[in-house]
Amino acid sequence: MTGKTLQTDSEGRLKHFLTTEGLSQSLLNSILDHAENFAGVADRPVKKVPLLRGKTVVNLFFEASTRTRTTFELAAKRLSADVLNLNIAHSATSKGETLSDTLRTLEAMHCDMFIVRHANSGAAHYITTQVAPHISVINAGDGRHAHPTQAMLDMFTIRKYKGDFTPLRVAIVGDILHSRVARSEIHALNTLGVSEVRVVGPDTLIPKDVESLGVHVYNDMTEGLTDVDVVMMLRLQRERMTGALLPSAHEFFNRYGLTAKRLAAAKKDAIVMHPGPINRGVEIESSIADSKRSVILQQVSHGIAVRMAVMAMTMQRFNDEGDS
Amino acid sequence: MTGKTLQTDSEGRLKHFLTTEGLSQSLLNSILDHAENFAGVADRPVKKVPLLRGKTVVNLFFEASTRTRTTFELAAKRLSADVLNLNIAHSATSKGETLSDTLRTLEAMHCDMFIVRHANSGAAHYITTQVAPHISVINAGDGRHAHPTQAMLDMFTIRKYKGDFTPLRVAIVGDILHSRVARSEIHALNTLGVSEVRVVGPDTLIPKDVESLGVHVYNDMTEGLTDVDVVMMLRLQRERMTGALLPSAHEFFNRYGLTAKRLAAAKKDAIVMHPGPINRGVEIESSIADSKRSVILQQVSHGIAVRMAVMAMTMQRFNDEGDS
Amino acid sequence: MTGKTLQTDSEGRLKHFLTTEGLSQSLLNSILDHAENFAGVADRPVKKVPLLRGKTVVNLFFEASTRTRTTFELAAKRLSADVLNLNIAHSATSKGETLSDTLRTLEAMHCDMFIVRHANSGAAHYITTQVAPHISVINAGDGRHAHPTQAMLDMFTIRKYKGDFTPLRVAIVGDILHSRVARSEIHALNTLGVSEVRVVGPDTLIPKDVESLGVHVYNDMTEGLTDVDVVMMLRLQRERMTGALLPSAHEFFNRYGLTAKRLAAAKKDAIVMHPGPINRGVEIESSIADSKRSVILQQVSHGIAVRMAVMAMTMQRFNDEGDS
Repeated sequence: MTGKTLQTDSEGRLKHFLTTEGLSQSLLNSILDHAENFAGVADRPVKKVPLLRGKTVVNLFFEASTRTRTTFELAAKRLSADVLNLNIAHSATSKGETLSDTLRTLEAMHCDMFIVRHANSGAAHYITTQVAPHISVINAGDGRHAHPTQAMLDMFTIRKYKGDFTPLRVAIVGDILHSRVARSEIHALNTLGVSEVRVVGPDTLIPKDVESLGVHVYNDMTEGLTDVDVVMMLRLQRERMTGALLPSAHEFFNRYGLTAKRLAAAKKDAIVMHPGPINRGVEIESSIADSKRSVILQQVSHGIAVRMAVMAMTMQRFNDEGDS
Repeated sequence: MTGKTLQTDSEGRLKHFLTTEGLSQSLLNSILDHAENFAGVADRPVKKVPLLRGKTVVNLFFEASTRTRTTFELAAKRLSADVLNLNIAHSATSKGETLSDTLRTLEAMHCDMFIVRHANSGAAHYITTQVAPHISVINAGDGRHAHPTQAMLDMFTIRKYKGDFTPLRVAIVGDILHSRVARSEIHALNTLGVSEVRVVGPDTLIPKDVESLGVHVYNDMTEGLTDVDVVMMLRLQRERMTGALLPSAHEFFNRYGLTAKRLAAAKKDAIVMHPGPINRGVEIESSIADSKRSVILQQVSHGIAVRMAVMAMTMQRFNDEGDS
Repeated sequence: MTGKTLQTDSEGRLKHFLTTEGLSQSLLNSILDHAENFAGVADRPVKKVPLLRGKTVVNLFFEASTRTRTTFELAAKRLSADVLNLNIAHSATSKGETLSDTLRTLEAMHCDMFIVRHANSGAAHYITTQVAPHISVINAGDGRHAHPTQAMLDMFTIRKYKGDFTPLRVAIVGDILHSRVARSEIHALNTLGVSEVRVVGPDTLIPKDVESLGVHVYNDMTEGLTDVDVVMMLRLQRERMTGALLPSAHEFFNRYGLTAKRLAAAKKDAIVMHPGPINRGVEIESSIADSKRSVILQQVSHGIAVRMAVMAMTMQRFNDEGDS
């Protein structure tokens, strides 16, 4: 089972969106192009297009997340879909129903799309192998594995500010080990052909085999940021870490927090990104988060457009059709 | 107070839907006929009809149930209604407001329909006697009393597979004593004129006066299933049972679980039903639940259509009007 | 920072709705006039107008309240807006995100309106100073400070029953000290030019400086009600009171509960109001709450119309535009 085979149909079109790994450059660019069109919807007086009218989108969240759930809910509603929010931890599965039976039941209710978030790596893939042919699955984060819509909104943001990917040096900073965001970003950046991807953090937070993904490892923050075009900070996933790996938030900031002094090593026009929510004074100095170089809020806006694009594409409904 | 008087208006049309008891055969058939039309909505690209546009449907759940709430929410949204989900256990009533005042307040907000679920038998009837004339009430399960939309989706499924009700032998298996589903099914089956209704279970889980409802009691599973056309399994309502009545799920399966061997006693084309969520290995063998004879998932699909039908009928809005 | 400056734009139109204090009589009358038009929407077969179609309204509740949240949600849906319910206590802020970052993020998602409820006085004002220019903020209750939509639905109800404000004597009864409703009512009544506003309650529940607001203080219930046209009861906010101020609900009723006997001191056609949910036998005798003089349920209905009016006005969308 590869991501590519599972994610695309026989004609190579996106059917599910589970990971950025294994998708072609042209498919990733196609997502970005569609998102570009959807970004314009937000500027209209009526922020809605009828592409998914009469479709039922299910937020199937096995792990709570208000922010991610909200962005998918808004994206679905702006596509005119009906949205069902299911917090599975509190529903039928706790009555002894199997996951497979829950999926069968939702299919029988004629739901059309599952947005899946789960604490276990591979959960969205597994669900994709279980669903009926008419259903599309979108991975909204599975364990340490992947968070592809986050990665694509990051790519959208980079393209917006930098245009061409090929000459870029990009540094991803922080807890790489536990980050599904980092993993999805690395695959997308490599496929889109950036010049260099660096990961920056302490050895305890960098996966041992990470260089096999084609990235360079830096333990020193200033060295890692030298001459980069893009700084992608990660959220310190305190809830996913065991105590032993990292002494304290304070010590983390001392070594890997993004400060004006450290950012000075990057190119003068380097942009600063973060998936949010940010921990001010832990991963990033407040003044940097609020500076002109920070594109953190633009990332949030782009997140709606990218999710609309992916939802429309997996349902084979394109924004040039329903743009009225 | 009889169900019939309370449920129909002066011209005999359905105004509330509280129980299958006391409704005429023609009214039950009319529900099935309307549901037949609504079943087609799910196959359209836009799964929506505008029959309840601008109406406000309130899920008034005094007892939590994700699955039942979800089916009513989807049915209402596919009729284009606005839906309000109220978990009454956590809201104003806990601030000392009476039930009557809560109802008055929702009426004053110009809500149009209450979908009521409550742990006490008779709750939906009581609420019906309390509401303003323009409101329709639908019982989504009250204590051990009734669950009429579940019964009607079961009738819809039987008619779909068997056509005519009159020659059928039907067995209802399991915990009859605590089952509002069983009670509503028995009344519907009798009114629709099946040849024989059997209830199958241990004496401790069969109500003492059940034969007065016109059913035959069987304690032995194989005997009870002999020559039946339809096997309706009940969910083992563990949360509703006191420990003394039933030793264990394991022992229950040994005596009343539906196995291939026991099902062999039924007619060769007998269908297997279950209201869900199923407990595999407790009420039903996994291979039977997944076999061609199982129509469990069809029941779920039919549940949306039947609920759309009942909602449209009680609001005097019929699917032949707004089908555009 | 005054309410007036913050709430209106350079042309004096309502941009946010935070408090009734400092708004002009003509602006308050304009809210009532718009609400009058919206009240008619509830009587139509399709209770919806397209004024806020494609807009995203966020219920930003830092303090739980099913009833108030519900009325805003219904008002927004009847204006065709998309509604996002965020219970902030359980979301990103608990992950260490600052309030300001939460607001920035919601803005980046292109939300258009924040309905804010917060336990701290001044919270809605503060949020208003923080948001982007295109956002409108509506205060749904902040600490002991203000609850302006409740006050305006009360004014709407008074105008409906009494016509002209100028000759009226109004008594507000109960726990004035902790009541944001009382404070907003006093400002609105004074601006609308009533003849006299009285507050009635024990000294322990009346703010020391209340006479500076232009009201007369009464400790005796019968004296306070003598010859009034309107009796506005307050809800006993037991959850906001420390034990020392009030011995018991029973004792409160003995001294300040509204009984037929006490109400006899008011004018013969005096109306009785209460913001709900009512505590029968604590603030008000049941028979009075259910009598013809009680307009409590009318207040609830008017609440939807007034909230629709305020939402449409702050968004510069008026009901004469989209009334089709």
